[in-house]
Amino acid sequence: MRSRQIELAARPVGEPRPTDFRLTEVEVGDPRPGELLVRNRWMSVDPYMRGRMNDAPSYVPPFALGAPLEGGAVGQVLRSADDRFEEGQWVLHQLGWRELALLPADAARPIDPALAPPSAYLGVLGMPGLTAYVGLFDIARVREGEEVFVSAAAGAVGSLVGQLAKLHGCRVIGSAGSAEKLAFLRDELGFDAVFNYREGRVHALLAAAAPAGIDVYFDNVGGEQLDAALVALRDHGRVAMCGAISLYNATEPPPGPRGIPLVVRKRLTLRGFIVSDHFERMAAFQREVAPLVREGRIRYRETTVEGLERAPEAFIGLLRGENIGKMVVSIDKEG
Amino acid sequence: MRSRQIELAARPVGEPRPTDFRLTEVEVGDPRPGELLVRNRWMSVDPYMRGRMNDAPSYVPPFALGAPLEGGAVGQVLRSADDRFEEGQWVLHQLGWRELALLPADAARPIDPALAPPSAYLGVLGMPGLTAYVGLFDIARVREGEEVFVSAAAGAVGSLVGQLAKLHGCRVIGSAGSAEKLAFLRDELGFDAVFNYREGRVHALLAAAAPAGIDVYFDNVGGEQLDAALVALRDHGRVAMCGAISLYNATEPPPGPRGIPLVVRKRLTLRGFIVSDHFERMAAFQREVAPLVREGRIRYRETTVEGLERAPEAFIGLLRGENIGKMVVSIDKEG
Repeated sequence: MRSRQIELAARPVGEPRPTDFRLTEVEVGDPRPGELLVRNRWMSVDPYMRGRMNDAPSYVPPFALGAPLEGGAVGQVLRSADDRFEEGQWVLHQLGWRELALLPADAARPIDPALAPPSAYLGVLGMPGLTAYVGLFDIARVREGEEVFVSAAAGAVGSLVGQLAKLHGCRVIGSAGSAEKLAFLRDELGFDAVFNYREGRVHALLAAAAPAGIDVYFDNVGGEQLDAALVALRDHGRVAMCGAISLYNATEPPPGPRGIPLVVRKRLTLRGFIVSDHFERMAAFQREVAPLVREGRIRYRETTVEGLERAPEAFIGLLRGENIGKMVVSIDKEG
Repeated sequence: MRSRQIELAARPVGEPRPTDFRLTEVEVGDPRPGELLVRNRWMSVDPYMRGRMNDAPSYVPPFALGAPLEGGAVGQVLRSADDRFEEGQWVLHQLGWRELALLPADAARPIDPALAPPSAYLGVLGMPGLTAYVGLFDIARVREGEEVFVSAAAGAVGSLVGQLAKLHGCRVIGSAGSAEKLAFLRDELGFDAVFNYREGRVHALLAAAAPAGIDVYFDNVGGEQLDAALVALRDHGRVAMCGAISLYNATEPPPGPRGIPLVVRKRLTLRGFIVSDHFERMAAFQREVAPLVREGRIRYRETTVEGLERAPEAFIGLLRGENIGKMVVSIDKEG
């Protein structure tokens, strides 16, 4: 069978361009014993993928040039050569960026489409959701009654961080980059205070949104917002360092936050984490959060880009902040 | 009785100058019930005092202009109006920078001059020693077999950090600013590798001293050495952030470390601490370290400046790194 896929054509320098990607078509064979052939229906684009496009050592190896990209995807089993899976079954796996995925059955995880729409397993019930959960509870160790600031708050991770913190009895401040996102945070998700980080000096915006200071900062962006958070944090505050999307396209690492000496004076803890170190928490996370999603006590949104060929556009848009909630690509293979 | 004392005459801008201090003489009365009059014999100058000379909010209030400075001191009770203390007894207290200290007995702690020379309670067995102990074991949670880098390694805190880490089965790298200090670290204290941070780019010097990377960085200086440590740290490394002496005289906070995004990628933990939050560990610390000092398994050095009137000079010299080991001022009141 023929399958279209997106390959990495060139390593991006700065902001990725459409020409850094290439749409190709390959022949995919039948699954051998222990394998599955999956027809992908949604694939994920995530900020961490930008790092894998560089040829630099990191916690995951770089993507290879001229090979298809990889990443989270959900789809239905088209042919199964493993008796744990049957045709039509929904699965989650890591061979996105293609129409058909041929993979070891051990690399696929069944998902329950009765619990939530399949694409939710790429977002609120999947890796980004677990990231929010682990970062807030295990890394920042948030406590009831604290003030929590989260950046990129309208994104897949941030929007769950804010809602989990609210349900935990916290006051929640979120930042985002457009009026539409701010309205989403305030009116749909119930954030206590929001600001547009593009509309002034972040230090002043955060001070106005949290006049008494903050206890926890969930950092998705790095840069100026991290520095402003160091200034706003109260004694014994914690920073869950999850990502630094504001820097991912930088060609030179910019200077770090001037507020670093405050870490001593205020006895702060800054702790970086990678969600893949914490997959053992997935079951507890889904047990706790799936019912909240079903009951509507946790809301989520998706920004869906239609068509595998537009996946590069979706990824570039993600880095520009064009999504509200999880950015996904829907894939509809003909025939 | 007359007592000379050092007052803060002006708030230093940048490096303190002798004219920021003033020697005055005051009349000191007899202790009232519950008070002691102590004749100070040694006083401490410590880097944290620089912060208290600024008029800025911090974890301790700023020193007042025109009032005597304060800080650790040891001396002998001259007159006691509290039946827990007798004349001649050695005590540790916080009213240094003066010949005679009149203070509530509750603010004095007896010290045992049979265990160690009294001045050691300002250094290896006192606040700086506890700082090393808490930072290494409670904050950085060092484990046997790890590689530990400490900056300002020839100072009161750093020299104990390195020796405690060695006794704990670690490989220890130290940085300092002179050949004499490096020889002290290597030949007297048994550090495994040392470098002079003034002799090149710190990143390269540290990489040469710790080619396989480090697990723990005990930060006394901030600035370039902190950035180099972020680069050298291995996955799951920890930074005990104790101080930033390289920045204390800065009139503008310099840009922070460029390596901050590595905190996420390498899952690092940076944790600031202030020793006064951890005084409940003093007993355990002294129980463990005092015998090691007595047996010569932990060594310490002092740089002694003679005469209260030279205390400002000692303090300015401390910030310039002119001391090896603990910088103390000996005070000999006549009569």
